[in-house]
Amino acid sequence: MADVNIRPLGDRVVVEPIEQETTTASGLVLPETAKEKPQTGKVLAVGLGRKDDDGDRIAMDVEEGQTILFAKYAGTEIKLGEKKVLIMKESDILGIVE
Amino acid sequence: MADVNIRPLGDRVVVEPIEQETTTASGLVLPETAKEKPQTGKVLAVGLGRKDDDGDRIAMDVEEGQTILFAKYAGTEIKLGEKKVLIMKESDILGIVE
Amino acid sequence: MADVNIRPLGDRVVVEPIEQETTTASGLVLPETAKEKPQTGKVLAVGLGRKDDDGDRIAMDVEEGQTILFAKYAGTEIKLGEKKVLIMKESDILGIVE
Amino acid sequence: MADVNIRPLGDRVVVEPIEQETTTASGLVLPETAKEKPQTGKVLAVGLGRKDDDGDRIAMDVEEGQTILFAKYAGTEIKLGEKKVLIMKESDILGIVE
Amino acid sequence: MADVNIRPLGDRVVVEPIEQETTTASGLVLPETAKEKPQTGKVLAVGLGRKDDDGDRIAMDVEEGQTILFAKYAGTEIKLGEKKVLIMKESDILGIVE
Amino acid sequence: MADVNIRPLGDRVVVEPIEQETTTASGLVLPETAKEKPQTGKVLAVGLGRKDDDGDRIAMDVEEGQTILFAKYAGTEIKLGEKKVLIMKESDILGIVE
Amino acid sequence: MADVNIRPLGDRVVVEPIEQETTTASGLVLPETAKEKPQTGKVLAVGLGRKDDDGDRIAMDVEEGQTILFAKYAGTEIKLGEKKVLIMKESDILGIVE
Repeated sequence: MADVNIRPLGDRVVVEPIEQETTTASGLVLPETAKEKPQTGKVLAVGLGRKDDDGDRIAMDVEEGQTILFAKYAGTEIKLGEKKVLIMKESDILGIVE
Repeated sequence: MADVNIRPLGDRVVVEPIEQETTTASGLVLPETAKEKPQTGKVLAVGLGRKDDDGDRIAMDVEEGQTILFAKYAGTEIKLGEKKVLIMKESDILGIVE
Repeated sequence: MADVNIRPLGDRVVVEPIEQETTTASGLVLPETAKEKPQTGKVLAVGLGRKDDDGDRIAMDVEEGQTILFAKYAGTEIKLGEKKVLIMKESDILGIVE
Repeated sequence: MADVNIRPLGDRVVVEPIEQETTTASGLVLPETAKEKPQTGKVLAVGLGRKDDDGDRIAMDVEEGQTILFAKYAGTEIKLGEKKVLIMKESDILGIVE
Repeated sequence: MADVNIRPLGDRVVVEPIEQETTTASGLVLPETAKEKPQTGKVLAVGLGRKDDDGDRIAMDVEEGQTILFAKYAGTEIKLGEKKVLIMKESDILGIVE
Repeated sequence: MADVNIRPLGDRVVVEPIEQETTTASGLVLPETAKEKPQTGKVLAVGLGRKDDDGDRIAMDVEEGQTILFAKYAGTEIKLGEKKVLIMKESDILGIVE
Repeated sequence: MADVNIRPLGDRVVVEPIEQETTTASGLVLPETAKEKPQTGKVLAVGLGRKDDDGDRIAMDVEEGQTILFAKYAGTEIKLGEKKVLIMKESDILGIVE
């Protein structure tokens, strides 16, 4: 989390997808295409929140470090050095895994 | 209900679908594909409600433990360990079964 | 009306469709497919009304027991024991038959 | 107008379409399909008006008995005994014929 | 303008299209289909204006008698006796020719 | 600018497109079809601004005489005597060239 | 940044895309078509912000000189002398690179 250097705008969050286990019971490693697209991720950075019609910020419901569930195909994929992260709107987050 | 560990965001609820009886009168067990998609479920967890334009929460109309009716194909299916649950918005809930 | 056990959410109502006469002048009973989809129904249950942007309820215009006209294909069909009922939004109701 | 027994909901009105003259100059009566769909009608009943976001009614601009112009294909056709009427929203009414 | 007998509803106006010159330099009269659809017209009647969310009228920007420019295919064509007029919303009016 | 006789309505502006140089380095004049559609123009006239939900005008950000950039295919083309002008909404203007 | 002469309107920003490295490890320079469309850019100019429903400006979240991430295909491409810049809305900006 230390080297994150994107400050998401508005009600956006930067999320690092958590890859599902790709080694099957028999020890086979599945190729990339056989893996299901992950729907859980760790929140790396949180925007300040969107502004309402009077220009006031609406506080965000998620915090840095939380593990979240998100809708399939949510967000935009961005390369952050070697790792791929997603920038999505808070409204694409379904829930927080506790 | 004890092992639920998803806190739904905003006006979302976590719902465990209630499978329709799949044993016919003659005792035949219907295969998965012959079953109608369930439209009733038990509410496992309830979000804090969506925020209105001033950032205030609007209270939810459903509570944990209630049996609800929901629109076909409502929500996103999530695997919660072995069981499949749905995360849907309160607006997808048609009514409460009493 | 006594055995209704669905409490519709928000501005939804539970409606029991009133089947059109299906016996023709000559006494023939028309098969199901030849019947026109009914557009009148009896209101079985009424929600508390939708919440406005401040979270206040907006009162409903229909009441339990009224006969209503509704748009074709309005609402979601739900089986309530043996009978089929519709859950629809008040905005799908065209008028009240007096 | 005496036997109207539908109370339209919200900002809806019940309109009886006025059939265009269907006898041509030469005295021929045109068959149903050759007639242009009428776009004028008499207002039979008027709803109380839609509720604004605070739940207050917004008064209607049309009154029972007025002759109106409406957009082609506006409204839902309903059989009122023998005659066919239209239930439409006030926003589908283009103007009042004076 | 004297015999206009339509009172447009809300923010609508009744407009009489001004036909473009259809006689060419060489004196040929162009057939109907070769004429460009007119985009200028004379305002015959003006509605009282649409109601805002509190039910108050918003005053109209155009007046009876003005010549206006309007978007192609704007409005609904209505026969007013022998002449064809358009009923359009004020938002379809691009500008006033002075 | 003197002979402009269209008063644009609401938040619309009348813009005279500025043709890109069509003479190439070698002196060739490019035919019409080879020219890129211009995206800069001079503001000939400015509306009073759109009305907000209370009926108050919202002031315009552009002024007569300014050179503007606009989105391709923005606005409606109108013939003003011999010259073609565009009537577009202020929201189609990308920026002001200074 | 000195020679920028576009003042973006409303909540728009002028962005100079930052080309990705196009020289591969082996020293090959990739042709234009093989390059990925850049998704980072430098903010050259910032609008005054959009007006809310009361006509008040909502302050912008980005500043001149910042490096931003933006959605693929965001904005409109404009030639500014020799260089191509993008004019986009602030809502197309995903985050600020720090």
